[in-house]
This record gives sequence, structure tokens and C-alpha cells, in this order.
Amino acid sequence: MARRNQHSREELQALAIEAVRELVTEQGLEKLSVRKVAQRIGYTPGMLYHVFSNLDDLILQANARTLDELLGTMTYAADQPPRQALLAMAGAYLALARQHTALWKMVFMHRMNQQAPVPDWYLQRTRQLFARVEQQVARLGGDHDETQIHLAARTLWSSVHGMGVLAVEDKLTVAGEVDEQAMLASLFHHYLQSWAGEKTA
Amino acid sequence: MARRNQHSREELQALAIEAVRELVTEQGLEKLSVRKVAQRIGYTPGMLYHVFSNLDDLILQANARTLDELLGTMTYAADQPPRQALLAMAGAYLALARQHTALWKMVFMHRMNQQAPVPDWYLQRTRQLFARVEQQVARLGGDHDETQIHLAARTLWSSVHGMGVLAVEDKLTVAGEVDEQAMLASLFHHYLQSWAGEKTA
Repeated sequence: MARRNQHSREELQALAIEAVRELVTEQGLEKLSVRKVAQRIGYTPGMLYHVFSNLDDLILQANARTLDELLGTMTYAADQPPRQALLAMAGAYLALARQHTALWKMVFMHRMNQQAPVPDWYLQRTRQLFARVEQQVARLGGDHDETQIHLAARTLWSSVHGMGVLAVEDKLTVAGEVDEQAMLASLFHHYLQSWAGEKTA
Repeated sequence: MARRNQHSREELQALAIEAVRELVTEQGLEKLSVRKVAQRIGYTPGMLYHVFSNLDDLILQANARTLDELLGTMTYAADQPPRQALLAMAGAYLALARQHTALWKMVFMHRMNQQAPVPDWYLQRTRQLFARVEQQVARLGGDHDETQIHLAARTLWSSVHGMGVLAVEDKLTVAGEVDEQAMLASLFHHYLQSWAGEKTA
């Protein structure tokens, strides 16, 4: 590791975020602390507080990295025809859940300390993700207004999220052995079939 | 409380199950132990082991009670036309998540100790629930075979589960303020619209 005075503010931030991701993957979110993050990168907790406001901030920054990776995959998928694009985006979401379960869970399990509001820069990040979905949903059906497009994007996301939760928690066996990819395909086929059909109604 | 020798085996079982439900509601599943359950009902842990094989068994019995209550509501909904029945069943599921969050979570968070298999009597219970959904799905579309009906029931359940998870975890605000009831209605409207339409295709 480079000596601490060799790190710029940005490098220190990046190091800390990477340490959060490693620690959460190894030990779970519950056991994360600023002290452990500092220890892993060879800084004092006090030094970290120059770069992050608190543990919440550190977690949100790490989550933002996860969301950015997802956004990258979703942006890449956007070139396809709308139905394929939406299915590919949902597939990327499930792949994230399967392959980086701890990081994916951190996005959904973390709660702000003391009920502090989620900061605007973070909400902006999630808005970008939904915008990708909305864009494709809008391409499918011209007669739907913004409110309906907003709702459709969230309905699909919540549904895919449920499949991800049950898949990573190994609860699909209790449902009688069902494949999450088949559920994903069924959901998108039927939901979008009707949605697109309403365009010409 | 009645003296311990006044309780039959069945009464003791019922008392213990009720104690599990209370303790989990008050303190969460993580803090549950056979000792605490015994303490609450005035028995020794050793006495409880005459009625339950282990903590897993105790939790599954408590979960079975939750599933039975859900089954009751779903059976009641089954008299309606299929689309309304399915929406009512999903509504009952979300209401359970909202009103008895701890008990609902226990059904999905509990993992068998030492990777023991989920016992058959419990799988039977969940199968009854899916059978209620499948029955209604089948009424909607005559051309679908059993495999497709099986898949549709699980797809709808996983989707509704996702809405429940995000609602009780207060994560829907991050999605830009969306109402879970509106998502539920959108999901069922579009999915079933297409599903029913395929009947005559």
C-alpha cells in the first residue's frame, strides 16, 4: 500500500469505497464500521472523516458505485428493441443479485441513521436508473402518459426485485422449484404484451 | 396462567406457537431461542422438546399458523370472478406484510439449521396456497397447460412479494414515491390481460 500522504482526496475516497465493498462482501453490512474501513486502508478513523461525513455517507458512496455499474449495463442494453432492452436490464439486475449478493443487498438493506433523509445526489442516481427503464417503456406504448410510464417502470422493478430476493434467499424451492429466468420472461412477456397493445386501443 | 400439568400436549403446542409469534413481533427472529419461548409460557426448555423437535420445528409451526391465516383469507376471496379473486389474494398478502411485518418476514427469513430439508408437511402447506392462485389463473385462460399455470402463479407471487419487501423496508420513496396498491393493480391488469387474451389466440 502507498503511504498515506501519497493519496489524494479522490484516491482516499476510492480506497475507502473499495474497502467498504470488500468488508460487506466478507462480513455483511451489520458488522461494518468506520473503524474497520479505516483499519483496512491504513488510515485513522479521524482521517476518513475528512473525506466522508459519516458511516451513512460511506455506505451511500459504496452503493452509488453498485448503482453506477448497473447503470452501465443498462445503458449498454438500451440499444436493443424495447422489449429485449427491458428484459436485458432486468436480467442485469438479477445477475447483480446473484453474483454480488452482499453489495446488492446493501443497496436495499441500508437505512439512514437517525432517520436522516436520503441525500439528493443519491436520489439523482436512482432516478437515472429508472429513466433508462422509462425510456424503453415509453418506446413501447405511445398513448400512455408520464404518470403511467412512471408507474410501469416501478411495477416492473418491484416485481423483478421480488424474484431476486426469493432467488438469493433460496426460497423458490418452497414454491415448488421454479426458475427465476422463466418467471422473468413470463412477467415481461405478459405485462409488456398488454402494455404495448393499449397503444392502439 | 394455568399450571403446567393442566395443559394437554395440544394446548402446550398452541401456547408455544403463540409465544414464538409474540417474541418475534417484539424482538425479531434473530433473538428467538427455545429458552425464551419456554420462559414466556412457564415451562422448562426440556418440556418443550417433548412437543417440538427443535427451534426449526417451532418456527415452522409458527409460520404454518401465519400461512393458515393467509390461506383463510385467500379461500374467502376465491368466490369472486378470477381477476378480482387474484387481486384480492395479492392484496391480502400485502396486508399481511404491512400489518404483521415480523410474522411475514419470519416466513421468508427463516433458514433451516444445518441445511436440513424443509419438511414435507410444511411444503404441503405452501402448495395449498399456490393451488388457490393456480385455480384462479386456470379459470382465466383455457389454453394454458399445467406448467404454464404453475409458472404464472409463481411469477405473480414473486412480483407481489417484491412490492411487499420494498413497501415494508420503506424503499419505495427512493423509487420516486410510488404507491404499492397502484403497482399491484398495474401488474395484475396487464399480466392477466395478456394471459387471458392468449386463451382465444
